[in-house]
Amino acid sequence: MPNPTAAMLVIGDEILSGRTRDSNMHHLAQRLTEHGIRLMEARVVADDHEAIIAAVNDLRARHDHLFTSGGIGPTHDDITAEAIAAAFATPITHRADAMALLQAHYDRAGLPFNEARQRMARIPDGATLIDNPISTAPGFTLGNVHVMAGVPSIFEAMLAGILPTLTGGAPLLSQSHRVNRGEGEIAGDFAALAAEFPDLTMGSYPFNTNGVYGTNLVIRGTDPARIDAAMTRLCALFP
Amino acid sequence: MPNPTAAMLVIGDEILSGRTRDSNMHHLAQRLTEHGIRLMEARVVADDHEAIIAAVNDLRARHDHLFTSGGIGPTHDDITAEAIAAAFATPITHRADAMALLQAHYDRAGLPFNEARQRMARIPDGATLIDNPISTAPGFTLGNVHVMAGVPSIFEAMLAGILPTLTGGAPLLSQSHRVNRGEGEIAGDFAALAAEFPDLTMGSYPFNTNGVYGTNLVIRGTDPARIDAAMTRLCALFP
Repeated sequence: MPNPTAAMLVIGDEILSGRTRDSNMHHLAQRLTEHGIRLMEARVVADDHEAIIAAVNDLRARHDHLFTSGGIGPTHDDITAEAIAAAFATPITHRADAMALLQAHYDRAGLPFNEARQRMARIPDGATLIDNPISTAPGFTLGNVHVMAGVPSIFEAMLAGILPTLTGGAPLLSQSHRVNRGEGEIAGDFAALAAEFPDLTMGSYPFNTNGVYGTNLVIRGTDPARIDAAMTRLCALFP
Repeated sequence: MPNPTAAMLVIGDEILSGRTRDSNMHHLAQRLTEHGIRLMEARVVADDHEAIIAAVNDLRARHDHLFTSGGIGPTHDDITAEAIAAAFATPITHRADAMALLQAHYDRAGLPFNEARQRMARIPDGATLIDNPISTAPGFTLGNVHVMAGVPSIFEAMLAGILPTLTGGAPLLSQSHRVNRGEGEIAGDFAALAAEFPDLTMGSYPFNTNGVYGTNLVIRGTDPARIDAAMTRLCALFP
């Protein structure tokens, strides 16, 4: 069985202006790889209704899952939920279960559950809520699209909640081998080895640490025995 | 004059597998913002010929500039130059000026200028070389597409070389104001202020530092006087 595929959509002006450095993409990539879901592409778009709709509809059609981060808070620049509803041509309302969760949360905190905070209960029809153990305001899954917060601690907690519910594939494994030689020196033999193992992918990543140049060679695949066989050959080629 | 627009394409399996955390996107975002070029979207794709071609042709058609990072080294997984040539339906050859640069570099280092290293001289017809002051192997500009290395130090050096040659717009300025109140508490008044300044964009970014919850409010635009006027109002609203 081939591994399920996924895409990510990061939503937020603050990433594209350089104000904030995204970290959710890297976290998602690591978790999906462990879970056997293959992250095929990622995109970052601004807080722009039409740009979000276009990216969502392109990516959800081409992958088993789409994960989004950002734009589900209480302020006027939080437009993700409305855009997702528009992408699915689905109505969006203040949903009763989300309203009840948030009402209880703000009651406990002694804070008013005002109109802005009520916006976080706006959920497209047919969606399933994603639990937010940190600040209550839920994410949601609609079809194959999982809509999560941009704040890293909340994104990570939401992902930890839903990932066990998604069917994974064989874990995507990797092994790496470090050689203190330049890429250009080992490229020929490395390419020949890669050609002998078409079921694996092999990548080379140059580094320069404290003036020492070298290359990390990485072998990826789903069959541990094949990866071991290739790694044995690789270590013999470049001791 | 509106600001020129740009997109970024990050190329590399290692980003999508979670092995490597991309930093070039954040660096580019900051430099373009200073230069008055508006980064509208960013994408990450795997080392996949068709995926690179599709992304390049989509993004270069919709923006004034496209910046790419990754995939221009000497190994078999470095396929960016071939894919860019295919995207432009342009021939690609070992170009004489790039061959000469690399020959001299490897002669100085006393290393063989082998077939793998010669691959780094493969440049699509009609491209202009981008200087690589760190490891010589050049990037290139073809049409409105700027093709650069994935290694951050080299990406940054290449960008520093070409950015002064690109026409910028008015710098994209921002000011921020930190308030120790939750987003939901200030959202209503903040949205009303944003509506009064349609020529500016206003964003709110919650934080939680050592147990203190608060919100950074950011105002962005190109007219310093307008930003000052909005910031004065903002500080009066939320002292």
